[in-house]
Amino acid sequence: MANIRSTFHAELVEDIVAEADRNGYEVVLGAVTPTHAEAAVVETLLSYRCEALILLGSELDEATLAGLAQRAPVVVIGRRTSCPGVDVVRTADGRGIGKVVDHLVALGHNRISHLGGGSGTIPSDRRTGYTRAMRRHGLAGEIDVIEGDLTERSGMQAAETLLARTQLPTAVIAANDQSAIGLLDRLLRAGVTVPGDIAVAGYDDSMLAKLAHIDLTTVSQEPGQQAQRAVAAIVERLDGDRSDRVDVVLEPLLVVRHTTSDGENLSQSDAP
Amino acid sequence: MANIRSTFHAELVEDIVAEADRNGYEVVLGAVTPTHAEAAVVETLLSYRCEALILLGSELDEATLAGLAQRAPVVVIGRRTSCPGVDVVRTADGRGIGKVVDHLVALGHNRISHLGGGSGTIPSDRRTGYTRAMRRHGLAGEIDVIEGDLTERSGMQAAETLLARTQLPTAVIAANDQSAIGLLDRLLRAGVTVPGDIAVAGYDDSMLAKLAHIDLTTVSQEPGQQAQRAVAAIVERLDGDRSDRVDVVLEPLLVVRHTTSDGENLSQSDAP
Repeated sequence: MANIRSTFHAELVEDIVAEADRNGYEVVLGAVTPTHAEAAVVETLLSYRCEALILLGSELDEATLAGLAQRAPVVVIGRRTSCPGVDVVRTADGRGIGKVVDHLVALGHNRISHLGGGSGTIPSDRRTGYTRAMRRHGLAGEIDVIEGDLTERSGMQAAETLLARTQLPTAVIAANDQSAIGLLDRLLRAGVTVPGDIAVAGYDDSMLAKLAHIDLTTVSQEPGQQAQRAVAAIVERLDGDRSDRVDVVLEPLLVVRHTTSDGENLSQSDAP
Repeated sequence: MANIRSTFHAELVEDIVAEADRNGYEVVLGAVTPTHAEAAVVETLLSYRCEALILLGSELDEATLAGLAQRAPVVVIGRRTSCPGVDVVRTADGRGIGKVVDHLVALGHNRISHLGGGSGTIPSDRRTGYTRAMRRHGLAGEIDVIEGDLTERSGMQAAETLLARTQLPTAVIAANDQSAIGLLDRLLRAGVTVPGDIAVAGYDDSMLAKLAHIDLTTVSQEPGQQAQRAVAAIVERLDGDRSDRVDVVLEPLLVVRHTTSDGENLSQSDAP
């Protein structure tokens, strides 16, 4: 069950299908759309003789999840839950942002701002990852969070905010690729060079980040790894005898592209 | 059954689910992925008690389609086929490009080039639509096709080709949004203003075209209309008594955005 508009979910689904194939299972999808809520989609899938459920980005409440887990094996991908009987596979978002901070500090950056993504669990984890990593590098005094909402438009607004200041930060880490791209566009239009004047990073390693003309440094949630662990969790319950709960937390992967590093990196001696 | 990576298919699926809901039917999806071919996906769906099939961008051969149509009602979306018993819903691609040419000519453009998308049925229909529309406007002498392959990279190459000429065309119509975006990016980086120096249009009305910083004039294939007609075709066969074949060809819709029109349109008197 996936959000049909999410390119990250699309990659996950591809990998889940390939992994299920290798294990001799078939996959059918229920699509969560604006008119079709998650609970209804799950009921349809169960009515079609599905033996197990893999939920991507689920927003079901804990009681509903617990009820589903009594009817079939359930794996939740991407979200924290301590619901009994429900397996979890996710990446460590805070550590992902921490890796971007490490990368930028190693390139000599110190004035590193964060473009936040609002109050959801995932943007909150990313914000905390940023502040922790800044403190770890002795940059507590440089912590600077501009609030946004994960949209391209909020990235554009953040760029206006930065351009109105007397001094730009040397780098900005956005909470996702989409807002990073809005930021990038407004900065480039204002004649700011990236990564020369300012480095920019996103999060998700989405199709947008990979476009050659954007070529955005970002963090991958490793859909292949998540798919493999999720299918393995299901197979262990269906074919094996596992009944204890698993909670897999995977390491996110830094993907360095042109927006932070053009081969003429800042000197290490610029670091504080 | 859909290509899980296609944003156009994602929109279609949303609309199909909404329309099926209204008719009291449930939808499950089979995802065509690099490891999972269309024929296998169809068999899985039929084995799950599916009563009918809607195929998006199907590449099954005519014999296979005919065989499927004997097992369940089949609607193909987007592709021509004269296969007995198979219903078709698609848009008229040639007329879609023709509408872009009409729009540009009305703005005063005459040197209008086409960035082609290769030898597939759909790019061929779009290329023919361009040459026919140019002739219709008395611009046969200005017909200029640069070949590409629907990728962002081929759009970038086309921009290099144009920039190496002594004179730029006044407008370029690309065979899809993705190649239009590569073209746009290279032109903007070379200091060419859009739409001032050159107008650019794409095709598909994809998520990329809608991004605020791209804001691309394009052609919509009206996923809502296609979904409605496809579900109606299925319902007529399941609940009604229709057995004659339907072939619905919908009118594509021009979506004018910033890359062809910034409010300071070319004067009509510039027209030939």
